[in-house]
Amino acid sequence: MVFNPAKQAFSERCVLQRWQLKVAYDGSEFRGWQALGDQGVRTVHRTLTAALMASHPLHSRHRQAPVLVGCSRTDRGVHAEGQVAHVDLLSLPDLDAETLRLASMLKTCRCPLEAPGQPPAATRRVNNSFHARKSALRKRYRYDLLLHPRASPFDARFVWAVGDLGAGVISEGARQLSGQAVDCSLLTVNWRASCKADTDEFDEDYYGSLTKRLFIETSLDAAAEKLSVRLECEAFLYRMARVVVSALVACARGVIGVADLQDASSPSFAKALRRVKGRIALAPPNGLFLEEIAYPSDGRWETPAKK
Amino acid sequence: MVFNPAKQAFSERCVLQRWQLKVAYDGSEFRGWQALGDQGVRTVHRTLTAALMASHPLHSRHRQAPVLVGCSRTDRGVHAEGQVAHVDLLSLPDLDAETLRLASMLKTCRCPLEAPGQPPAATRRVNNSFHARKSALRKRYRYDLLLHPRASPFDARFVWAVGDLGAGVISEGARQLSGQAVDCSLLTVNWRASCKADTDEFDEDYYGSLTKRLFIETSLDAAAEKLSVRLECEAFLYRMARVVVSALVACARGVIGVADLQDASSPSFAKALRRVKGRIALAPPNGLFLEEIAYPSDGRWETPAKK
Repeated sequence: MVFNPAKQAFSERCVLQRWQLKVAYDGSEFRGWQALGDQGVRTVHRTLTAALMASHPLHSRHRQAPVLVGCSRTDRGVHAEGQVAHVDLLSLPDLDAETLRLASMLKTCRCPLEAPGQPPAATRRVNNSFHARKSALRKRYRYDLLLHPRASPFDARFVWAVGDLGAGVISEGARQLSGQAVDCSLLTVNWRASCKADTDEFDEDYYGSLTKRLFIETSLDAAAEKLSVRLECEAFLYRMARVVVSALVACARGVIGVADLQDASSPSFAKALRRVKGRIALAPPNGLFLEEIAYPSDGRWETPAKK
Repeated sequence: MVFNPAKQAFSERCVLQRWQLKVAYDGSEFRGWQALGDQGVRTVHRTLTAALMASHPLHSRHRQAPVLVGCSRTDRGVHAEGQVAHVDLLSLPDLDAETLRLASMLKTCRCPLEAPGQPPAATRRVNNSFHARKSALRKRYRYDLLLHPRASPFDARFVWAVGDLGAGVISEGARQLSGQAVDCSLLTVNWRASCKADTDEFDEDYYGSLTKRLFIETSLDAAAEKLSVRLECEAFLYRMARVVVSALVACARGVIGVADLQDASSPSFAKALRRVKGRIALAPPNGLFLEEIAYPSDGRWETPAKK
């Protein structure tokens, strides 16, 4: 690269300021959040980075993409109501007015992930010790099941139409599993291989022991024939939420018994899950929403929440 | 065309059997229902005709597209929960088993308008005196307003986000207009020109006098901040539902007064509508749903409902 003294002087004056973004997206037409991968692929990370760059005068003038880190790598087709990301944006510290202008501009940043012309759901400045992924305490996903064999064209992107299944059995299965320390290696056969493949994304420290306590709640909207399964955990592994939902649906279809879910660390649980896998399809991504991510209260994230 | 004795013999054995289809679609990615127009344009009529042809053995074998007539020509971007159409399908009268097979096949016809792999909402045989448009008694549209400045990515295709407006004023405006004989020429300046353009679609007898009694009801879902405006009329003219909703929103924004809606045949009403047009955008199509079409009870449509 040719040395450019004007650019050099500029970058010496600049500081990076960290912003927290809360982002919602309809994942139907994205190949997931993923930051890496083929250039041509439309991912949420890529789309959001491009929108930030286009709407930020310093980044667009210097053609320098801002560094964006999302909390969750949602899969292809998975939606988010409360994805959280942080982004480091160039800023001029000697110009307070400029900083303020940046802040207001970020708030009106036209982000193609949302409704056309809508800004991200929420944007605020945070100090540099905040990290969208490492500071997170826990996440909550929601999976919406439609207890009807066919979804309307207005729902089809957002539910799994499982047919007329007993909501009671699904809720009972959820109660059995809830609060248990789920050995994720039992749930997602391929998760370890898939993490190893993107070596830089796998973080043994972050995931800690592979056993996480999973909390599950269900709520039924009888009029809409919709059963929502909420899953809360410190960290979700590859396809974990979808595997759990498949197991609950398998209960309602009689493929496994509710009793099979009583002890998630037992060999009978592992055996039951293998039976699920052989008999029913994995819950499709379109019913799944990243609903909320919990962080320590402001400024308490200097000490990483996990290690 | 070259004379083909085999085809001739076949077509002499065939009869056309009329089917009634109830179709739902997310109109976002269609250029409306329209049957005519440029070949390359993706319309609901064209998509449904292609699906019927592909799934019907007699039509696909003989490459003869079935004749499909929809009740409403919904605009580009307008949705339907209860569009009704009729289609004449080739059938072999001497083969009852074949007829039955056709019926069951139609029920599983893979229609790309719906959720992938879903059949039309309802299909049944009707006698040839049924006409999707001419037999209709009245139609009901629903317009969904979001009383919030921004829609979520999951709602954006299906609402008009009008901001924090008083639902009470909109409902009061609707009460004023409801039951009045609305002179449609006041509502939709261009409707006559647009009908004349597709001459074969405009039917003076069908529309009758241009004055139709319009009934409006509103219902508020406070938790979802959603106000639904239901509009029922014998026949809707070009953009009529959207113009009425624009007028109600203009009331809530103080562009016109509720009193301006008291007499829809008065010059002050026409003047108020011109003010609406100058000040606020036409209600976008994405909030509008063709909700239901009413027909006389079975078999009573031999005498056309209108003339």
